Amino acid sequence: MSSLTHSDITIILIGLGVLLIAGRVFGEIATRLRQPAIIGEIIAGILLGPTVMGRLAPGLMEHVFPSGGNPKIVLQGITTVAVVLFLLVAGMEVDLSSIFRQGKVAMSVSISGIVAPFGVGLLAAIVAPDLFGREIGAHALPFALFFATAMAISALPVIARTLMDLNLFRTDLGMVIIAAAIFDDLVGWIIFALVIGLIDPSHRGGLAVGTTVALTLAYLAFMLTVGRWTIHAVLPWLQARLSWPAGVLTFAMGLAFLGAAFAEFIGVHAVFGSFIAGVALGDSSHLRERTRTTIAQFVAFVFAPLFFVSIGLRVDFVVHFDLVLTLAVLAVAMIGKVVGCGLGARVAGMPWRESWAVGFGMNSRGAMEIILGLLALQYGVIGERLFVALVIMALTTSITSGIVMQRILRRRTVRRFADHLHPRGYVNPLKAAEREDAIRELAGVAATITGLPVDVIQRASLERERMMPTGLGLCVAVPHARLHGMGKPLVCLGISQDGIEFNAPDGDRSRMIFLILTAADDDGAQLEILADISRAFLDPALRDAAMRAQTYNEFITLLKTREPSHQRRPISAQRAPESETTRI
Amino acid sequence: MSSLTHSDITIILIGLGVLLIAGRVFGEIATRLRQPAIIGEIIAGILLGPTVMGRLAPGLMEHVFPSGGNPKIVLQGITTVAVVLFLLVAGMEVDLSSIFRQGKVAMSVSISGIVAPFGVGLLAAIVAPDLFGREIGAHALPFALFFATAMAISALPVIARTLMDLNLFRTDLGMVIIAAAIFDDLVGWIIFALVIGLIDPSHRGGLAVGTTVALTLAYLAFMLTVGRWTIHAVLPWLQARLSWPAGVLTFAMGLAFLGAAFAEFIGVHAVFGSFIAGVALGDSSHLRERTRTTIAQFVAFVFAPLFFVSIGLRVDFVVHFDLVLTLAVLAVAMIGKVVGCGLGARVAGMPWRESWAVGFGMNSRGAMEIILGLLALQYGVIGERLFVALVIMALTTSITSGIVMQRILRRRTVRRFADHLHPRGYVNPLKAAEREDAIRELAGVAATITGLPVDVIQRASLERERMMPTGLGLCVAVPHARLHGMGKPLVCLGISQDGIEFNAPDGDRSRMIFLILTAADDDGAQLEILADISRAFLDPALRDAAMRAQTYNEFITLLKTREPSHQRRPISAQRAPESETTRI
Repeated sequence: MSSLTHSDITIILIGLGVLLIAGRVFGEIATRLRQPAIIGEIIAGILLGPTVMGRLAPGLMEHVFPSGGNPKIVLQGITTVAVVLFLLVAGMEVDLSSIFRQGKVAMSVSISGIVAPFGVGLLAAIVAPDLFGREIGAHALPFALFFATAMAISALPVIARTLMDLNLFRTDLGMVIIAAAIFDDLVGWIIFALVIGLIDPSHRGGLAVGTTVALTLAYLAFMLTVGRWTIHAVLPWLQARLSWPAGVLTFAMGLAFLGAAFAEFIGVHAVFGSFIAGVALGDSSHLRERTRTTIAQFVAFVFAPLFFVSIGLRVDFVVHFDLVLTLAVLAVAMIGKVVGCGLGARVAGMPWRESWAVGFGMNSRGAMEIILGLLALQYGVIGERLFVALVIMALTTSITSGIVMQRILRRRTVRRFADHLHPRGYVNPLKAAEREDAIRELAGVAATITGLPVDVIQRASLERERMMPTGLGLCVAVPHARLHGMGKPLVCLGISQDGIEFNAPDGDRSRMIFLILTAADDDGAQLEILADISRAFLDPALRDAAMRAQTYNEFITLLKTREPSHQRRPISAQRAPESETTRI
Repeated sequence: MSSLTHSDITIILIGLGVLLIAGRVFGEIATRLRQPAIIGEIIAGILLGPTVMGRLAPGLMEHVFPSGGNPKIVLQGITTVAVVLFLLVAGMEVDLSSIFRQGKVAMSVSISGIVAPFGVGLLAAIVAPDLFGREIGAHALPFALFFATAMAISALPVIARTLMDLNLFRTDLGMVIIAAAIFDDLVGWIIFALVIGLIDPSHRGGLAVGTTVALTLAYLAFMLTVGRWTIHAVLPWLQARLSWPAGVLTFAMGLAFLGAAFAEFIGVHAVFGSFIAGVALGDSSHLRERTRTTIAQFVAFVFAPLFFVSIGLRVDFVVHFDLVLTLAVLAVAMIGKVVGCGLGARVAGMPWRESWAVGFGMNSRGAMEIILGLLALQYGVIGERLFVALVIMALTTSITSGIVMQRILRRRTVRRFADHLHPRGYVNPLKAAEREDAIRELAGVAATITGLPVDVIQRASLERERMMPTGLGLCVAVPHARLHGMGKPLVCLGISQDGIEFNAPDGDRSRMIFLILTAADDDGAQLEILADISRAFLDPALRDAAMRAQTYNEFITLLKTREPSHQRRPISAQRAPESETTRI
């Protein structure tokens, strides 16, 4: 049919609405569990697709996500556009110079981080192709090369996110890991493009293998030199002369689409084209932070979820699940990457403990692996069994990476006071007008939330307060206590418009009184939360707005939506978010 | 074919890239000519489509925008999604309460602004259907009703933009026009939905006319009451508890898609559903300004251009151009709207001059007319001849509206200094260290740009300076002169890091010296530019950044990209842009 019908349009719109909402709901749950949103999105897709809904309500599924016809074609088109834009943003995160800045260690880690897993993967695929899921009739060489690449790839965004959670991002260790991951991302995609060049010519529009490979390398060489310099030279002009941000947004997306079209035309996949276009673009210091943010947000919140949820629609994760294969893939992937990177770090002079942390840090495969696997599936290089195994491997390595690093380095995720501020613990306005009364009032609220006896909380907080008053200045006071029998920390907040005297060093009365209760044996929690509160309310605009908030929801919204500072940060990946623009 | 091939993907990506870039380039040209971007986008489409490229290079056009097959379907799907999102944003601009706030005059203007053009249009279509382009075999009633609706509709965004350009936005006159346009937009779409309900049942998925009309009204009633209240109640929770802005973004888009799907399902077009969803959503005071901006920007800069450029791909604007029809449509449209609204304003007590200004202000048809026309074309209610006439009418009324209002009210568009700052007039750093030397240096630069003799400029500026020094304070000085033989105003800017003594009232040395040259007979230009400069550099952050800029491009980019203030403004449409998020 050459035109969309009334019912086609209805189905397409329902499909998009359902994909977006389901992706968000499950992404949100994943975020709550301190996991990347993509994990929730993949699960949402599995629920909506043949794996679950296809079993429970096959008719309904066929209705919403038909297996053929125009709606399917349009959805496929939209998800293709989505993944092209996702790779544009991923490419924009690549900062070539940071690899060199991090010097010898980063070089050593990134090279061994490519070579070791690639070698192990290649060996495994050649020696035991059947164990690693080669389909009958699939060509041996492309399969082995793809498998090796799949083992070698890493996922910059999720790695950056994990490091941030562990407060390691700005450390030397963090910088080494980021620089090495950037390099591995780049090299991985180049190898993958070449692998695609080797397979069945029907995918290359009839070009010879040599032509495809030559054109791929030419595109790469051009974009990373002349293309990059031209963009760097043209951007200031574009930003000054065209409407802003429309001009530069269109430029970036136009570049991504045309680069992707070229890559698709020469027989490597579209995503390679937009990824490299993103690298060339993002490397320019003229690209303003807000342009990056605008593109990154829309891609992260709209296009990426559409793509990742749609993955679950394509494959039945139960029928094609193969435990032995999955475990084998997981083992090879982890050994290759962890040992490779770990040894690379050790050889370059890092202590053993840090070296292993680097190894696990580099181990996340995230979204990149899933995209790679899907392409290989579409090109017929691998079958659905291996695809399912790769998805599970990607999710598993991403989830475990942070946990293991935390153990090795004995780090904890940073605690933020907003995470521990209970809705019922927000008291606005405080009835009390005096210091000890205010503490008693908040302690009373805390007692109903924690279930601990009110007098215990009051006594501990007042004792501490009498030792030395807790007015921080800038209208904030932080009475606190450590209690036996506490689980997670609890923060209660009382607002007093008239202010209460807490003997703050600046002489002002305190108008936001935070009562912080932590477990007696939890070293650090109290200090972290204290530091977080004093940092947050340094900003006078936020302080004023916080005083004007009427409800808990308004207060929390305010904390979440305060303007991020738009300063240029030292290395590109530090752009990664306060909010959750980064993805695994 | 049930799956996208390699070459399908290539074509789709090229198509998207070309549409976006061409739309931007021509949109940018239109903006330069002080016209709405949509005019450039429509022209870009006409050039890329059958009208021009189809004649010059039919093979190439068929290659990039094939007339059938998967790429066409996908492009159609994407432009449908684009227009659904465009109407979501348009709906979000509708602020129901502002109509009531503006009281009797707004009510009178909006009601006569609907009734008069609708009546005139209905009469014209019934009396002389052939003159007004009814196709042979088309049903008389739906045609006449559609034609009447097409005459009555208005275009809020372009109206808001025009008022802003004329500095009328915050005046009483401007408020009346905006409130009336909001009402007309809303009523126009409701009538249109009902008209669609009357036509061929095949478009309604087999529902009876009565069912469609009843469901449309039920949807409307529900969304504007229970739906609106629910959204208002749920938003604070969503913004506080979900990731931000992902949560609320997904909520808005999900709502738009599902509302659109419902509208499409019951037999009125999808855009009606998303428009009403937008009204329900945008009316909540809990929706944060930044969420609106994020959605509005992406829609304005990416989705809307895709849609509007694609219009030119559908129709041959030369073959279907009919001069008599176009003039007839234009006459009926203008008489109905201008006279209707003008009389409405007069009756409610406005003076005649202002009443006519209101009439012409309401006359812009903009994007809304084009969308309405396209839907009517797809539903077979009108033919291509009338569609072309409607597009031309929409563009003509939009372009003339501002010009005529300006004449009637003797208003001028506001002059901004940045528009008159010449690239060669940016001198950084100034060599001069003293007041008169600095003026001489800038005058020398101005002479090479204007072609006027350097001594004339120097003498005039120095004379003025000696009368009274021009240091404004806050590091800014504004030497200036009026010259015979000047055309447009010229602003030159010299930067002095050490500062130059301009006797500023705050005692500080001036570090940014603006030389402002205007024509001797141009009252007001000098004052407007002076005021604009002093307003701009009140912001200390901008001042500091401006001093750090190294080049003209950096300086201009800075001015364009400074943070808009995020304060909630009095009425919803005032959200409309400093940049060009609004569209005609």
